[in-house]
Amino acid sequence: MTNVLQRARVPVETDRLAVDTLRFLAADMVQSASSGHPGMPMGAAPMAWTLWSRHLRHDPQAPGWADRDRFVLSAGHGSALLYGLLHTFGYDLPEAELRSFRQLGSRTPGHPEFGHTPGVECTTGPLGQGLAMAVGMALAERMANARYPEVTGHHTYAIVGDGCLMEGISHEAASFAGHLGLGRLVVLWDDNDITIDGGVDRSCGDDQPARFAACGWHTEAVVDGTDIDAIDQSITRAKSDPRPSFIAVRTVIGQGAPGVEGTAKAHGSPLGDALLAETKELAGWEHPPFTVPEPVREACAALAEAGARERAAWGEDFATFEAACPERAAKYRRAQERRLPDDLTPLLQVADAVPRATRQSSQACLDAARGMLPELVGGSADLSGSTGTAFGELVTRDDYAGTAIAFGIREFGMAAIMNGISLHGGFRVFGSTFLVFADYLRPALRLSALMGQPVIYVLTHDSIAVGEDGPTHQPVEHVESLRAIPGLQVLRPADTAETVEAWRLALKRTDGPTALILSRQSLPQLDGDDLDGDHPVSLEIVATGSEVSLATAVARGLRAEGHGVRVVSALDRSRYAPDPSVTSVSLEAGNTAGWRGIVDLAIGIDDFGDSGPGGEVMARHGFTADAVAARVRDYLDSAR
Amino acid sequence: MTNVLQRARVPVETDRLAVDTLRFLAADMVQSASSGHPGMPMGAAPMAWTLWSRHLRHDPQAPGWADRDRFVLSAGHGSALLYGLLHTFGYDLPEAELRSFRQLGSRTPGHPEFGHTPGVECTTGPLGQGLAMAVGMALAERMANARYPEVTGHHTYAIVGDGCLMEGISHEAASFAGHLGLGRLVVLWDDNDITIDGGVDRSCGDDQPARFAACGWHTEAVVDGTDIDAIDQSITRAKSDPRPSFIAVRTVIGQGAPGVEGTAKAHGSPLGDALLAETKELAGWEHPPFTVPEPVREACAALAEAGARERAAWGEDFATFEAACPERAAKYRRAQERRLPDDLTPLLQVADAVPRATRQSSQACLDAARGMLPELVGGSADLSGSTGTAFGELVTRDDYAGTAIAFGIREFGMAAIMNGISLHGGFRVFGSTFLVFADYLRPALRLSALMGQPVIYVLTHDSIAVGEDGPTHQPVEHVESLRAIPGLQVLRPADTAETVEAWRLALKRTDGPTALILSRQSLPQLDGDDLDGDHPVSLEIVATGSEVSLATAVARGLRAEGHGVRVVSALDRSRYAPDPSVTSVSLEAGNTAGWRGIVDLAIGIDDFGDSGPGGEVMARHGFTADAVAARVRDYLDSAR
Repeated sequence: MTNVLQRARVPVETDRLAVDTLRFLAADMVQSASSGHPGMPMGAAPMAWTLWSRHLRHDPQAPGWADRDRFVLSAGHGSALLYGLLHTFGYDLPEAELRSFRQLGSRTPGHPEFGHTPGVECTTGPLGQGLAMAVGMALAERMANARYPEVTGHHTYAIVGDGCLMEGISHEAASFAGHLGLGRLVVLWDDNDITIDGGVDRSCGDDQPARFAACGWHTEAVVDGTDIDAIDQSITRAKSDPRPSFIAVRTVIGQGAPGVEGTAKAHGSPLGDALLAETKELAGWEHPPFTVPEPVREACAALAEAGARERAAWGEDFATFEAACPERAAKYRRAQERRLPDDLTPLLQVADAVPRATRQSSQACLDAARGMLPELVGGSADLSGSTGTAFGELVTRDDYAGTAIAFGIREFGMAAIMNGISLHGGFRVFGSTFLVFADYLRPALRLSALMGQPVIYVLTHDSIAVGEDGPTHQPVEHVESLRAIPGLQVLRPADTAETVEAWRLALKRTDGPTALILSRQSLPQLDGDDLDGDHPVSLEIVATGSEVSLATAVARGLRAEGHGVRVVSALDRSRYAPDPSVTSVSLEAGNTAGWRGIVDLAIGIDDFGDSGPGGEVMARHGFTADAVAARVRDYLDSAR
Repeated sequence: MTNVLQRARVPVETDRLAVDTLRFLAADMVQSASSGHPGMPMGAAPMAWTLWSRHLRHDPQAPGWADRDRFVLSAGHGSALLYGLLHTFGYDLPEAELRSFRQLGSRTPGHPEFGHTPGVECTTGPLGQGLAMAVGMALAERMANARYPEVTGHHTYAIVGDGCLMEGISHEAASFAGHLGLGRLVVLWDDNDITIDGGVDRSCGDDQPARFAACGWHTEAVVDGTDIDAIDQSITRAKSDPRPSFIAVRTVIGQGAPGVEGTAKAHGSPLGDALLAETKELAGWEHPPFTVPEPVREACAALAEAGARERAAWGEDFATFEAACPERAAKYRRAQERRLPDDLTPLLQVADAVPRATRQSSQACLDAARGMLPELVGGSADLSGSTGTAFGELVTRDDYAGTAIAFGIREFGMAAIMNGISLHGGFRVFGSTFLVFADYLRPALRLSALMGQPVIYVLTHDSIAVGEDGPTHQPVEHVESLRAIPGLQVLRPADTAETVEAWRLALKRTDGPTALILSRQSLPQLDGDDLDGDHPVSLEIVATGSEVSLATAVARGLRAEGHGVRVVSALDRSRYAPDPSVTSVSLEAGNTAGWRGIVDLAIGIDDFGDSGPGGEVMARHGFTADAVAARVRDYLDSAR
């Protein structure tokens, strides 16, 4: 496919002017908001300008162009730099928005927020995650290229700071990207030697290029971060290297601001009117606040126009592709638009007559979905067999056409990489681990929710019934803690039929993540009669997942004693409302805090589990039909 | 101080026998439990035996000896190896316990659990954390040595697996240890090239020694993991190098088990009776299950005796020290026993008359505690100024006598390192970050709770009132999610007096962690009259932290309308019970799920926040006195 950058080189004086434009736009934004981070933009403006003016392939008028290059500002506190770039290049981000930086309702929030601002590819600020999302985007590009080489070929760029590189997720992301040979990923490190508390040497002495090299990366060093040609040449070499590239760019935080440049003081506070004025004077900058000088405006307009031409050329490629391969093009479009195929029959026909763990039912759903949804990719953090997430051929550095992603023992990285794949578009993605290790990936799951990405988390081994592996592997507080994350759909199916429904709901959802909570142990297939029992009902037991079948056993016993009992399976608790005319009891092998506000009696587990056979551990914590029935009886007696 | 290993070298044949003993004890345990992980112990037995027989300085009769070497099995699924070591070396772990491996109530749970089994230094299983805890222990040793050189000088050893090294926390731990030059830390990598899903090459191609070297570590390689002398020599060189050491030991998972050795099949399932018998036959092992052959028993007894002599010599050193420096020795003992000094006056005198953020009040508490509690150390994940956790001189690689630890931008590592410091003993430790980033450290906080370690988490910027930094930096679900962790004390003080009380409670607690939830914004000092109002009371507003002063404003308004209103500050919600004779309303700027089961009306925030000035963001979510009063009025009207 066509991928030739056709753009005039910007004159050197304009380069200098543009860099100062970005610096002072950022400083003006922070000053006007009396809040924010001027230092990073002032130091990193040259590398950002070099990247955007000489390499980034994008069309400001079409921020959703599927084959655009992706740019991730992983050091999200430098948002003012990104907003300055978007503004000067002609994205829909007028000066008024810059002037309302960090104000309620503006398109210029304190940290970049996906869906809020045209051209912002992902929400960043929680450090390290931007790098991992960029890795996910770069993988998505390669997977898309393997499927649709005619219309796919772009790069992913990221700017990361020291904070990103100290965070552990940077290792997971670097290791994964190196392993998969994501050569179209180029990461620039804003090496300013400063963190919030002072010099990096207070807490870190890593040889960053060496550690990236140890993970299979190509590395470059730019000793003067204001040297636009050197940065340009490093990026050019990086793009031609088959490995992912890490470019260490030596910068000065808050560059040009006398007295604070190169110190932590430049990091997170406005410069102040006097110092900002002095900084501008020293730079020979004589414009009013928020000015984009005419030469810069013209250069950016020309670059934007070049981008528009590139997009138009791509549009022609796409038309050729569509004419030649209408079915593949239709699939491409459907995946881009996150539409499910009309016919979900293969998934809906998954059924079981025999007892089965819901993780196994889920594997059957995935087996059915694979043929049906070619855009679905996923895997696990090295637990594919245990979590029921085997999913066809492995994606490898030699062949990205596979559907199974081996995320490695990197839960947090997995989740952030999934966010990147989802944000890139063209794919639906799932990832899996044991529920107890949802704690490891929680910060990225929160971002899935905040960004409204339909990432699917398959979380198995969902209670103390895990058994012998003991309390480190037995979730107790996890389901309730997941329910607390705004916008996360939490589904805990009770048998195969409900697992199918859970997968249907997860796939149908296009604007937010879903957590599927699945059992390790085998569960009976539910029978409607077991749930409803005989009328009239005076007691309702609401349960989820593996406890629904336990609830039916409890109900059978209580019915034999003359109680009218109904069992309700709350696949999605947020959709459950108790029947106020009857006594309600919840039964879930986990934290009860959230249930206590819903039902009259909440039976659960508010302590850690134990190592032992699953049934014995459950019994020790009161999860047998007899023990539950006794508690219900006691409650009914006391409430009488 | 005395630190000379006086032990006879074990004969070569006994070495071989001992390795097989450990292998088959582990295989027998897994077989008898029909559950567990035989592969790791069978491959790693030689390195474990070499370490324990030739280097580890310990006394099985005194597992709590303060100056013992520490051994951490970071690859916790290999628990059967650790139990085999403890048993053969004469710790209080008789054969009956090995025979009840992974059974309810045994001292041999599926993963090593601190406090459960004598000689187990920490709970492992959640991968990567053992390595970070070992780093914490190694730092604690250096800090103790700086304070009490007369009685402190030991090593910390860890065995890590591929899973540990893929987890991001391994980077945080390695980087921190390299930076601080923790030369008495020796890490052995069980390099068996296998993970649960198959070969490591499915998901990882890192040059592990190179990346540790990039973080300032000394590295060694042992090409044959059964070569005891080579392992021994590497450990010896590692101990003499001033840097922390990483020894790559090439092993074969499930070594000796025909057909499964070197494959993922050996990882997580019993070998089966037939294959185990064949394996034993091939090894020439003719003993009944759970046998420790006499020569091995004798060799271990001799080694244990040597350890007892070393401890006795240390005891003499301690007596000398105590005689010479009774006051320092008394402090040492007090810290070891986690007793607070009798006089807490400096802390209790912290008071404020003017409004102040509770993070600032907390800084005042720390300032007061520093002189009072020399065993208290701590810091933050690079937010000391923001979170109010500056704490004296920095601990550096050149001088470990400081009290302030710069954990770097490594929240998860910080928490696991704190666990290691606490487990080591002799210190109380706190660490700090923004509350929203408690998600990053949650897996280690869970282990603090599971292990009953009195680690103190200082979590600030505790609501959407954070303001301009936006939803990525605004906790909503976090306080409730922390309350769900069993055994974690969650305290959210409302003013300086309550912050003092929170610190007192946190320090007083010796058997579990505490989270202090603190405000970014300034809060008024509460006045008892504002809380209680006039009688008779018909309405109780229970609030926490920054919402208590808001509640008093609401109460003032409602009282003016004739309502009898009482305000309660629930510093620790778990100790709050509503007055059933009045209407109860909760007010907390976060998730309401847990409050709904406690009060009649729960006012909170169940959605993400926004970027904007804090007060405006609070107002948008209904957190003004007028808006809250209106909701209360509506509720009272509707309930009438």
